[in-house]
Amino acid sequence: MDLIRRGMRRGVRGGVLALALTMGLLAAPGAAPAQEVLEKRVFEGGAYQTRGGGTIGNLRIGYQTMGRLNAEGTNAILICHFFSGNSHAFGRLSATGPAGYWDAIIGPGKPIDTDKYFVVSADTLVNVNVPDANTVTTGPASINPDTGRPYAMTFPVVSMRDFVETQKRLLDSLGVKRLALVAGPSNGGLQSIEWAAAYPGFVERVMPVIAAEIDAWMQGWLDLWESPIRLDPNWRDGDYYAQGRDLPIRGLAEAWKIVTLQARDRLWAKQYDRRPADGQDPARRIGDRFAIESWLDAAALARARTSDANAFLYMVRANQLFLNEYPSLAAALAGAPARWLVVSTASDRVFLAEGVAEFTAALRTAGKQVATAALDGPLGHLNGVVGMAPVGETIRAFLAR
Amino acid sequence: MDLIRRGMRRGVRGGVLALALTMGLLAAPGAAPAQEVLEKRVFEGGAYQTRGGGTIGNLRIGYQTMGRLNAEGTNAILICHFFSGNSHAFGRLSATGPAGYWDAIIGPGKPIDTDKYFVVSADTLVNVNVPDANTVTTGPASINPDTGRPYAMTFPVVSMRDFVETQKRLLDSLGVKRLALVAGPSNGGLQSIEWAAAYPGFVERVMPVIAAEIDAWMQGWLDLWESPIRLDPNWRDGDYYAQGRDLPIRGLAEAWKIVTLQARDRLWAKQYDRRPADGQDPARRIGDRFAIESWLDAAALARARTSDANAFLYMVRANQLFLNEYPSLAAALAGAPARWLVVSTASDRVFLAEGVAEFTAALRTAGKQVATAALDGPLGHLNGVVGMAPVGETIRAFLAR
Repeated sequence: MDLIRRGMRRGVRGGVLALALTMGLLAAPGAAPAQEVLEKRVFEGGAYQTRGGGTIGNLRIGYQTMGRLNAEGTNAILICHFFSGNSHAFGRLSATGPAGYWDAIIGPGKPIDTDKYFVVSADTLVNVNVPDANTVTTGPASINPDTGRPYAMTFPVVSMRDFVETQKRLLDSLGVKRLALVAGPSNGGLQSIEWAAAYPGFVERVMPVIAAEIDAWMQGWLDLWESPIRLDPNWRDGDYYAQGRDLPIRGLAEAWKIVTLQARDRLWAKQYDRRPADGQDPARRIGDRFAIESWLDAAALARARTSDANAFLYMVRANQLFLNEYPSLAAALAGAPARWLVVSTASDRVFLAEGVAEFTAALRTAGKQVATAALDGPLGHLNGVVGMAPVGETIRAFLAR
Repeated sequence: MDLIRRGMRRGVRGGVLALALTMGLLAAPGAAPAQEVLEKRVFEGGAYQTRGGGTIGNLRIGYQTMGRLNAEGTNAILICHFFSGNSHAFGRLSATGPAGYWDAIIGPGKPIDTDKYFVVSADTLVNVNVPDANTVTTGPASINPDTGRPYAMTFPVVSMRDFVETQKRLLDSLGVKRLALVAGPSNGGLQSIEWAAAYPGFVERVMPVIAAEIDAWMQGWLDLWESPIRLDPNWRDGDYYAQGRDLPIRGLAEAWKIVTLQARDRLWAKQYDRRPADGQDPARRIGDRFAIESWLDAAALARARTSDANAFLYMVRANQLFLNEYPSLAAALAGAPARWLVVSTASDRVFLAEGVAEFTAALRTAGKQVATAALDGPLGHLNGVVGMAPVGETIRAFLAR
């Protein structure tokens, strides 16, 4: 990891949430009441065989916890992160740093109450935030112990199920015997569903948020997200880690630009009106920009500097491989646990309302007890990352059932 | 134009609709009853000053007509084309060629009845289909008479209003004194609205189909569409027309890939299920593809070979400059004609249903008589290009009012 970080921009700290802050998504540091500072820990998992038959020599993933595990190991909750996120779902990792993305609903006395539950969140495999000091992952930027050099595109393909398997090893190592809840937004919602299919006896409740089935339509969109990376001449088929090579920052930024806009909504964009960027005149100069374009350029470039292009490609693939070991969604859900809370937002332009409705119907067809909750807000898909407070009491009630 | 065509793939004929056919969108040649073969004509407009203050030395745009103009010049209808289309909205340009994209509703005895109306459709400025023999346009691939070389990115910015102005010159040259209707899908719907704002006394009825306001959200999406072109090293800031230079086909194909998927819908994608492409194993090999990805790759590459990357950039800008001469949508609509038929489809992922609803409300607030019609079908946005037959009688009734 250190070698990789040297190859990238130095001095990035707390990049994921700092970036979210610059995007105006989260409350400023200091706005929340004082809390203990959490420790980011590292799970050393040893050798790991992927579901696709590949081998990862030295599995390492970061995680954080809050609350205490009971003697029976049955009061645990697992929070899974979104595509561009990491384990920082709750609490603070430094006295002056930002709170986690779901901090509004996780903590002492909060709907996911750490006075009652032992809450765990882990960085996934192939996490995109490679240059971020608070992210610990194993992926294409990691050193292959067999060669002493980064895997790059020789890293084995991993699936959503591999995310679950590595988290299961972590939970086993912590003594967890049962999850009262597995939950997460977007990519985290997909992991939650995959958990329910893989370990029905281990999971009591499931709460996918802004998530639904990855069908062919979504596989296609994920491909659109990643395509600019492959176009960037600096990508070099993934072989860009060597000292002195330019990084595929432009392609990665274009990839983030698609994600950034699609994860928002029309209402959010209204603030830019249709006005030109400062000092620019797009009606007269073909190279000049509109205000929303300049914002997207800057936000995406900043995000590109705190992430890794190859990891983005592997994360896309893991999403495309959602439930890939089952012949159908119905087959995957057949044996899944009974209690579900599906949280969605009508203005979601990533997981469309129609897809969420189909997923919810599939759960009911499979005989599950399904509650639903809707999020409002101007942020579209991102309502499920930064706008969860309004459904807090619904979650508390779900946990009490 | 000839120089440009030499620089591109030879032998492309009827590329726009041939491509639509390979995409399975239109009926096969021969499926419709025999019709006269239409002649594609060229309007030579001389020098043209753009709304942004630039000069085009030698304006040429292609067009086609059906029906006869009456002595008063008042029975004309103008059909405006979509982003990737051309004037071929109706009829056949050769005995064995395909019918136009709206042929189901335009022709003798059809809802837009060429026994009653003189129907005109023209290629826009900066039309993307530069290598297509049935498209005649003036844009960045055209020869600048001052230099004898292609304009490339020195071509002046043109706006949706410039599309209207050049079409107005064409209609004047044909003796048209009034339009009974101006209509079109998507980009053609935007042109229709721009027409209504610019020439309210000249236009009796307006029918925008799968279109609404270009707000900041849409400006951002248009930017995402074009961004892969600028990433392609063969783009060379637009300077790729010289003999022997590689064309920015990969970047242009990625641009079309975004358009191609977004212009469709989830229901259409279901045919690909989540299956791998033939002989590929994306669960084991990071370079392997899913079926929908392979289809998108092939469709977009074919489309890239029949279009021009710089023209794509200029067409994006023209769309972003929708109604750019008005302080607001309300101001643009204030003096517009009274009679409107707004046709939309709920599964449109380009012009979202919410945007269409806002646009329709703005028309009503401005005191217009607004009828609406909804399109079904599995194709999303494209329902408004290839699925218009079901609203034919609604259109006939609208024209009779």
